[in-house]
Amino acid sequence: MAANGSWLDIPARSHFSLANIPFGIITTPSSSDKHAAVAIGDHVLDLHAFARHDGFAELPDFTSAQIATLSQPTLNDFAALGQDIHVKVRKYLQEVFLKDGPISHVLEQNVEAQQASLFRRDQVTMHLPMKIGGYTDFFAGKNHAHNCGCIFRDPAKALQPNYLHLPVAYNSRASSVVVSGTGIRRPLGQFLERPSATEPSFGPCRRLDIELELGALLCKGNNLGEPIDVNQAGKHIFGFVLLNDWSARDIQAWEAVPLGPFNAKTFASSISPWVVLKDALDPFRAAAIPNENTLHPYLREARKENVYDIQLEVDLSTPAGDTAVFSRTNGRNLVYSFAQMIAHHTIGGCPLQVGDLIGSGTISGTESGTLGSLLEASNGGKQIYAISSTIKRTFLEDGDLVTIRGWCGGDDSARVGFGECSGKILPSPKPSWLTT
Amino acid sequence: MAANGSWLDIPARSHFSLANIPFGIITTPSSSDKHAAVAIGDHVLDLHAFARHDGFAELPDFTSAQIATLSQPTLNDFAALGQDIHVKVRKYLQEVFLKDGPISHVLEQNVEAQQASLFRRDQVTMHLPMKIGGYTDFFAGKNHAHNCGCIFRDPAKALQPNYLHLPVAYNSRASSVVVSGTGIRRPLGQFLERPSATEPSFGPCRRLDIELELGALLCKGNNLGEPIDVNQAGKHIFGFVLLNDWSARDIQAWEAVPLGPFNAKTFASSISPWVVLKDALDPFRAAAIPNENTLHPYLREARKENVYDIQLEVDLSTPAGDTAVFSRTNGRNLVYSFAQMIAHHTIGGCPLQVGDLIGSGTISGTESGTLGSLLEASNGGKQIYAISSTIKRTFLEDGDLVTIRGWCGGDDSARVGFGECSGKILPSPKPSWLTT
Repeated sequence: MAANGSWLDIPARSHFSLANIPFGIITTPSSSDKHAAVAIGDHVLDLHAFARHDGFAELPDFTSAQIATLSQPTLNDFAALGQDIHVKVRKYLQEVFLKDGPISHVLEQNVEAQQASLFRRDQVTMHLPMKIGGYTDFFAGKNHAHNCGCIFRDPAKALQPNYLHLPVAYNSRASSVVVSGTGIRRPLGQFLERPSATEPSFGPCRRLDIELELGALLCKGNNLGEPIDVNQAGKHIFGFVLLNDWSARDIQAWEAVPLGPFNAKTFASSISPWVVLKDALDPFRAAAIPNENTLHPYLREARKENVYDIQLEVDLSTPAGDTAVFSRTNGRNLVYSFAQMIAHHTIGGCPLQVGDLIGSGTISGTESGTLGSLLEASNGGKQIYAISSTIKRTFLEDGDLVTIRGWCGGDDSARVGFGECSGKILPSPKPSWLTT
Repeated sequence: MAANGSWLDIPARSHFSLANIPFGIITTPSSSDKHAAVAIGDHVLDLHAFARHDGFAELPDFTSAQIATLSQPTLNDFAALGQDIHVKVRKYLQEVFLKDGPISHVLEQNVEAQQASLFRRDQVTMHLPMKIGGYTDFFAGKNHAHNCGCIFRDPAKALQPNYLHLPVAYNSRASSVVVSGTGIRRPLGQFLERPSATEPSFGPCRRLDIELELGALLCKGNNLGEPIDVNQAGKHIFGFVLLNDWSARDIQAWEAVPLGPFNAKTFASSISPWVVLKDALDPFRAAAIPNENTLHPYLREARKENVYDIQLEVDLSTPAGDTAVFSRTNGRNLVYSFAQMIAHHTIGGCPLQVGDLIGSGTISGTESGTLGSLLEASNGGKQIYAISSTIKRTFLEDGDLVTIRGWCGGDDSARVGFGECSGKILPSPKPSWLTT
């Protein structure tokens, strides 16, 4: 597959090159019904409209029932068709966009189909790509885990005893997952004003933070009581998104004993709208951070290159109009793969389902400028972090806009990227019934 | 409403007296489609079949669209109609079962309708009553929290500093909630053989436990970023079930640092199949365990009687055929109400949804014989607990059948009960790909 060579004008370094073809859910100027779409350069192809113009006529054995999944308001039914179908449809759409290809009559030379189904990306509205039934957040970013251990405990024993034996995780809240662009309301909650306080205060969170993560969306589940083989776990992954697991550090510190984070994590988690299929990301496999432990067999993966070489970047824009890059890091900064997370998630018998979201945990490098949270950058809120000469933060302020970007590939025309995952901090709600 | 006085023969002390009318989802000998039903004495009324025989003809303003919710495979759509409708339908069904009542022609004198819609309870199969999107488990049983603190920490500081300021909770796993009667597979997982071990072992859980809880199922959600007023929170509750939050204590002890329990809690959680409507339980309101703290305003409830006087009983049956009562306790043993749990759950903006399950946390008394877990009864596994002269346990063995029962009211004919929530321990799975 030639990476350039589309009849569409795809800008250099576009995240949505011919090599990508990510799937999402859109509404368009011509329809308020949600449908599946793919992104290509600065355009999107509405797959519902494309199908109605016989766009899939040249794709053998893609049945009308299968095509109908693309007219659904979420990608769950399409995902549930399985990876063989995802691969087939993605390859077909690459050919549809290929200049002077063998099926150029389908769209390139079909003005009517183009007018009905091809939109500029800035014309469409993006929605949550899947109905997410379960959202599990792991803690597989070893540098982040180490940094947190240094901040809250002892640098000499920064990692907990279990950390390198199993991918630590907690169940988070699927109902609060929102699509990129949704405003993030600063949560109300209880916290201690000072570590020495004995009575909690109540009010707007004072230590609002980001967590730079990758998310996997599942296309295949398992039955209760039937663990998934780590070497088959990749077959359960539909694709990947960027994830910002917004965190209220002060609420978390007070509430999380002894059962873990709760309200600190359930006010919102943002994901990028385009799902990069596993097949598109697989050429960018790379080795994870080595784990010095010998893992129990259920976590031993035959494949050594089990994570992805994804460039990650976070920037922060202030209400005053300043923007600066807060962090640059890489998807390799994980000590467990998504396959290992899935294997561990199910080893006790927990059933996963199509549409479940698995978060990697915060992805940090080891140095300033490569950290995935303000908690780390500000050393637990003890130091002001200078993101630029004009932007200085310990934690987020109202009006701050945080944008995560991620892509694979260099400065060429074959990038496989995620686009953006952004969210702007809104002031806390003020319920009329709430007296303080 | 006379509590006895039905034309059906309702046994004395039946959980399903005329005063109850709990809702569930059944399949019957005549239909494998799941439909709504109510329990009455030793019978169930199939509400789908009842509606088809014009059973609701005498209920004003119960529209055909509303009636159609009773033909759905879950109670979610019926629940979403709101409490006014639940109350109205329940009262109407009480009249339907009332001997020689004004609407006796609907069922009492309608043999055809009876034959189509009335079944003996042992003839029908029960299913999960709702599609559960989120399952949150609280820790509101103060005696349980105290007992755990004594076992794992210091009896002088048994409760964590936050405990009496907020209802501690964690997100659990909705996909592993199962209906009473489902076999419970002992989970595989990692654990330390001894507290002094430095490397984890892997295998079947060795400390499998029960947690006696109450569960609330929701009929009304809230939007992201819009907290629920504690004094309005009761309107979000459809009804209540018994809940056994099966727990793997050895897996939990190893995995839960620093993000809380995960695989220890996600292999199965059992609920009783009949949802006792909030309206049916309200006559049994009682005061919770007093909280010496002054709570922040968002947790201050105007109503003092904010929990329920529910008799709770757990028994254990062994493969050898012995059965004994393990625990007798009461639903009053909570220090936070479900309204307070809902208010806290949403104060940061987390959206709840129709069908969400809220667990109370383990309900224990203060003495031996009143404890809601084997962890407490065996003092953290250090002592063998003699449930009877023949049944001695630290934790559960394969083949053990655990049954929870709960009811309100005395030895009269107006009991409002939950029936049973049971589960039998099955051996761990042995996946063919798993080498150990």
